[in-house]
Amino acid sequence: MSLDHARAKPHDRLAAALEGDLARVGTLIRERMASEAAPRIPQVTAHLIDAGGKRLRPMLVLAAARMMGFEGSYHIHLAVAVEFIHTATLLHDDVVDDSKQRRGRPTANLLWDNMSSVLVGDYLFARAFQLMVEPGSLRVLDILANASATISEGEVLQLVVARDLSATEETYLRVIRGKTAALFSAATQAGGVIAGASADQEEALREYGDALGIAFQIVDDLLDIEGTDAIGKNRGDDLREGKLTLPVIRAIARADEEERAFWTRTVGRGQVEAEDVERARAIMEAHGALDSTRAEAGMWVARAKAALERLPAHPLREMLADLADYVVAREV
Amino acid sequence: MSLDHARAKPHDRLAAALEGDLARVGTLIRERMASEAAPRIPQVTAHLIDAGGKRLRPMLVLAAARMMGFEGSYHIHLAVAVEFIHTATLLHDDVVDDSKQRRGRPTANLLWDNMSSVLVGDYLFARAFQLMVEPGSLRVLDILANASATISEGEVLQLVVARDLSATEETYLRVIRGKTAALFSAATQAGGVIAGASADQEEALREYGDALGIAFQIVDDLLDIEGTDAIGKNRGDDLREGKLTLPVIRAIARADEEERAFWTRTVGRGQVEAEDVERARAIMEAHGALDSTRAEAGMWVARAKAALERLPAHPLREMLADLADYVVAREV
Repeated sequence: MSLDHARAKPHDRLAAALEGDLARVGTLIRERMASEAAPRIPQVTAHLIDAGGKRLRPMLVLAAARMMGFEGSYHIHLAVAVEFIHTATLLHDDVVDDSKQRRGRPTANLLWDNMSSVLVGDYLFARAFQLMVEPGSLRVLDILANASATISEGEVLQLVVARDLSATEETYLRVIRGKTAALFSAATQAGGVIAGASADQEEALREYGDALGIAFQIVDDLLDIEGTDAIGKNRGDDLREGKLTLPVIRAIARADEEERAFWTRTVGRGQVEAEDVERARAIMEAHGALDSTRAEAGMWVARAKAALERLPAHPLREMLADLADYVVAREV
Repeated sequence: MSLDHARAKPHDRLAAALEGDLARVGTLIRERMASEAAPRIPQVTAHLIDAGGKRLRPMLVLAAARMMGFEGSYHIHLAVAVEFIHTATLLHDDVVDDSKQRRGRPTANLLWDNMSSVLVGDYLFARAFQLMVEPGSLRVLDILANASATISEGEVLQLVVARDLSATEETYLRVIRGKTAALFSAATQAGGVIAGASADQEEALREYGDALGIAFQIVDDLLDIEGTDAIGKNRGDDLREGKLTLPVIRAIARADEEERAFWTRTVGRGQVEAEDVERARAIMEAHGALDSTRAEAGMWVARAKAALERLPAHPLREMLADLADYVVAREV
């Protein structure tokens, strides 16, 4: 892969630096998503995996391990395990949210059915654990088992507080730490663990992943409001699903009586008309909720980069810092 | 617990022999199903766990470990992990089958919603892995990760072959090995592993669990046809769901033209009237499909007991042998 490094996006630069490892990840994914007994499994998995997610999480594992000097091959297993856990949660999320589109394509639950999505997700989760058990690091298993529990907790919490106008910023942070940051931080921390990082380095890697994941999800939630209708995203989905994202929580906190009625009808009761998406955006903007949310994401990016400072200098470390900046600057 | 041992059912005798361990299992279940972040999790879990399943799988772990001389406390963790994996699959199965009743009570997906069942199942699965990682046996993790993958494969296979009249007995065996026997055999094998069983003893324990699980599921499928409408079961559910169970496969293999039309309409197309359940039973009986299926279950019980013979004599070994007999003799 030849890249104009100065102009390429941080994500692509990282992919180029990890090119050989990523190819091995791709091969192992193919190998382990197979099921002789039930060909539906690789079909459903391939549908999602071929749609070309950004492979962000596997790259975090690879970058953390390589940057800390890892020379073995377990990082490939670990990267695939993390991607499988992520894919499993996407399959289950699409069932839970009754989603029709993901990455610009119809979702698996729409193409096949909810049952296949639930069961293939379970299969991938089990395969992830098999992958981690093979080379045998109990510390890594511990980190990923904890992350998996935290992910489900975050998702259940999100479900429970949906349409609840009294949800707090603290709850929001807990939800996104679970649904997104837990796997990011497990990926970077585990990458360090297999490379023999010191306790402080391991903690720095964990903090980087945690802060990056939180920033990433805050921006994802912002893009649902401010973004263009890019392929694979439907602006306003969160509003329709009654998700209490940070700008919504902040706008509700500053709402006058009329606005409160608007939030109660839309977020609270799920009565969302086409024009409400724009109205919601306008209200948030008027209260500065979008700017302050973007600033919040920026603060987490700063924390992510500060954590990296505690790690040895390395070209990959600089790429991870650029990646953090990009997470907030991105428009899709 | 005081029991008339001669008259008590094998299952209850086993529970009495393992009384102390089972109490510790109960305590650890309570402790680990908690979630500070999302109280919905213990609510959903308690609904299912309090409904009082037979705790058969945890007992298999405990009996195998104790019988092989285990003196530590990891068997408690392992028993809870196995029960959590089982509970997770029940939650997901009820979503997949759109079930309304389980163990005589409304299912969690009916009381809450499908989303909660999917996510709480994921949570319990992650908690199971945490439990197994804690005391740290990679061999045990390997066994349970493999079992979890096999369970999902079996469930997907069942889904794919539903309503397919050309399904074979080999496919049926593969489905029930996955959906039921995989966790039974993982439970007995892992119990032996932590007790330091020899390779041959470990294999004997695995074979016992495998054969017991297969016999158990064959009888479960028979009870759906022959059983009374006992609390918590609706006779004919399998027929309505288009499941290709062994007696159905055997009856189809011997069907005349009219019967074939009947199977095509009911199993194949899902048009099942109230009187069809009885008609299906009558056709199976006429072809000896019920008797031959019961004989098949008996053969697996014999295999289960033969495997036990390769293990050292122990009172628990005799109880496990009685349990195998009971699995076929039971009427609910």
